[in-house]
Amino acid sequence: MSVHRHSSSSYSFDNVIIQSQAAVVGPVEGDGPLAQYFDRIWPSELNNHPSSEKAELALLIEAQNVALTKARIEWPNVDLVMGGDLLDQLIATNFAAREHERPLAGLFSACAVFAESLGFGAMMIAGGGPKTVLAAACSHHQSAERQFRYPLELGYQKAPTAAWTSTAAGACVLAEDNSVKDGSLVIEAVTFGHVIDWGEKNPNDMATAMTPAAFDTIKRHLRDMQRDISYYDQVYTGDLGVMGIRLLDAMARQEGLNWSRYISDCGKSLYDIERQDVHNGGSGPGCSASVFSGFLCHQLQHREFHRILLVSTGALFSPKSYLQGESIPAIAHAVAVSRIN
Amino acid sequence: MSVHRHSSSSYSFDNVIIQSQAAVVGPVEGDGPLAQYFDRIWPSELNNHPSSEKAELALLIEAQNVALTKARIEWPNVDLVMGGDLLDQLIATNFAAREHERPLAGLFSACAVFAESLGFGAMMIAGGGPKTVLAAACSHHQSAERQFRYPLELGYQKAPTAAWTSTAAGACVLAEDNSVKDGSLVIEAVTFGHVIDWGEKNPNDMATAMTPAAFDTIKRHLRDMQRDISYYDQVYTGDLGVMGIRLLDAMARQEGLNWSRYISDCGKSLYDIERQDVHNGGSGPGCSASVFSGFLCHQLQHREFHRILLVSTGALFSPKSYLQGESIPAIAHAVAVSRIN
Repeated sequence: MSVHRHSSSSYSFDNVIIQSQAAVVGPVEGDGPLAQYFDRIWPSELNNHPSSEKAELALLIEAQNVALTKARIEWPNVDLVMGGDLLDQLIATNFAAREHERPLAGLFSACAVFAESLGFGAMMIAGGGPKTVLAAACSHHQSAERQFRYPLELGYQKAPTAAWTSTAAGACVLAEDNSVKDGSLVIEAVTFGHVIDWGEKNPNDMATAMTPAAFDTIKRHLRDMQRDISYYDQVYTGDLGVMGIRLLDAMARQEGLNWSRYISDCGKSLYDIERQDVHNGGSGPGCSASVFSGFLCHQLQHREFHRILLVSTGALFSPKSYLQGESIPAIAHAVAVSRIN
Repeated sequence: MSVHRHSSSSYSFDNVIIQSQAAVVGPVEGDGPLAQYFDRIWPSELNNHPSSEKAELALLIEAQNVALTKARIEWPNVDLVMGGDLLDQLIATNFAAREHERPLAGLFSACAVFAESLGFGAMMIAGGGPKTVLAAACSHHQSAERQFRYPLELGYQKAPTAAWTSTAAGACVLAEDNSVKDGSLVIEAVTFGHVIDWGEKNPNDMATAMTPAAFDTIKRHLRDMQRDISYYDQVYTGDLGVMGIRLLDAMARQEGLNWSRYISDCGKSLYDIERQDVHNGGSGPGCSASVFSGFLCHQLQHREFHRILLVSTGALFSPKSYLQGESIPAIAHAVAVSRIN
């Protein structure tokens, strides 16, 4: 058996590799500091598609296809497609699936869905189920703005604490490999998140809602795996942004933990925050998916990092729950990825 | 290893039991022919909750709690909660999760999500991951009507082909049991669905959109497992209703298969269709979840059935995709459940 249980939240594996990865992003993301790590950068938000929803669908399909091409795998050899997006009823993920017609596990945990896909995908491979899983997630700035806030055409002013939903998709091919070789990237452990709600109600400040969930998952992961944070070269949270990552650092400090040099954030890294005027930084399922599949996997492959922990974070509210006065529950799933030698 | 792979879609297991199950339904469902099999029947649609969304949340939490009570398990001993609902951003499932604070795998496959939860939950247990999984799904007539169609207050006329979204929740406790005893209900095999889209565009006729997906999954399951349909006492599709189950029978006949006496439908069984004026029959994630957790598990336990195949079906569209002129992709996941002696 190659699933090792460390707690009800944390599991580790011996034989799950990331066979390939792909990131396709929009023009704003392609103008940011991580541009060189992406497989493709779209010249415009819509890239000639007739709506932002259809553009998001095309972005996802492109990332999935690039990942398969890099792994030299054809669609009929994908055992299971996993993933999700932010659109109501997961229409990007579901409509992409009618193109490939492979078994589909649709997931929803808002912007945490990429780590959810990697984590459950890895556990099923390690458990002797599917041999090849395509895990993917996407988001689109324009489709998210009009679904969750207002259409961009309205020209409204965003709050300084607001996140910038990324136009981005990331995809990874996960595979069983019982003779893991030097240089392989392995999904070594996962910790599944609990839903945490500290009562935050401001939909223009999801960082404050999500940071307690990230903190809870990271602490749980380190405790379950009996590791210090320094085990990792870097822990990348999903979409905490400029303010969230400071809040996470402060929360750790309050418990006597000095995490400052070990924590970074995908949403903060994806943009040149000041120059690009993206407020608190990136968000959306495509944010951590593209930063992981583009930048972080590259850094692992090129020995800049040897071990990282990806902690995608999701704010689990809807426009309707907000209007009904509900607070914003959040979740964070963690995936530990290492390079073998 | 106790996951046996039959194809990229189909897997079987040796050691996954349904330890308990619960179904909680609304007054219309409680007035139907399956009333005696439900654990609780609400006297009104809202049952004193301030909105239909909060009522749906309460229905789900009640089903989860009844299932745990029947299994004599406390929340801290649940390793993983899986499931989903129809509400945008899965707010019933996600808001329920902030009460229990257990690891959560949010899933979305519309009305197919209960079988998706049972299937992936069983595969992870069999693979050596979580030992106890709480799989659940819910829907609420009023919250679905106003999200997908119109608020009931408008008093609009439903089409004869339209489905009646059920006010219902079902929950099962799945557990690892390496010494499966006589009388146990086991999740013996699963077949994960492919997304099928034959171009149907009418959101008031989801049966026609979903039937090809159900047909595809059942055929794939029988072929992968090398079984004839008569292996099962009965195959229960999810929400095909009166018209869909006739269409499925006709599609089978076209391929020379006489399935008539082996196929039934949860959405058709849940109501007295004529008397209760529910048009084509029940739908919603809670429909197959409650019919399975209430009626079907009871029939297995009381030796009315020995082997059944649950084939929950989901129509993967959104109001937005419909307005954009898209067709309705569909998916069906199949779960084979047997009674040991």
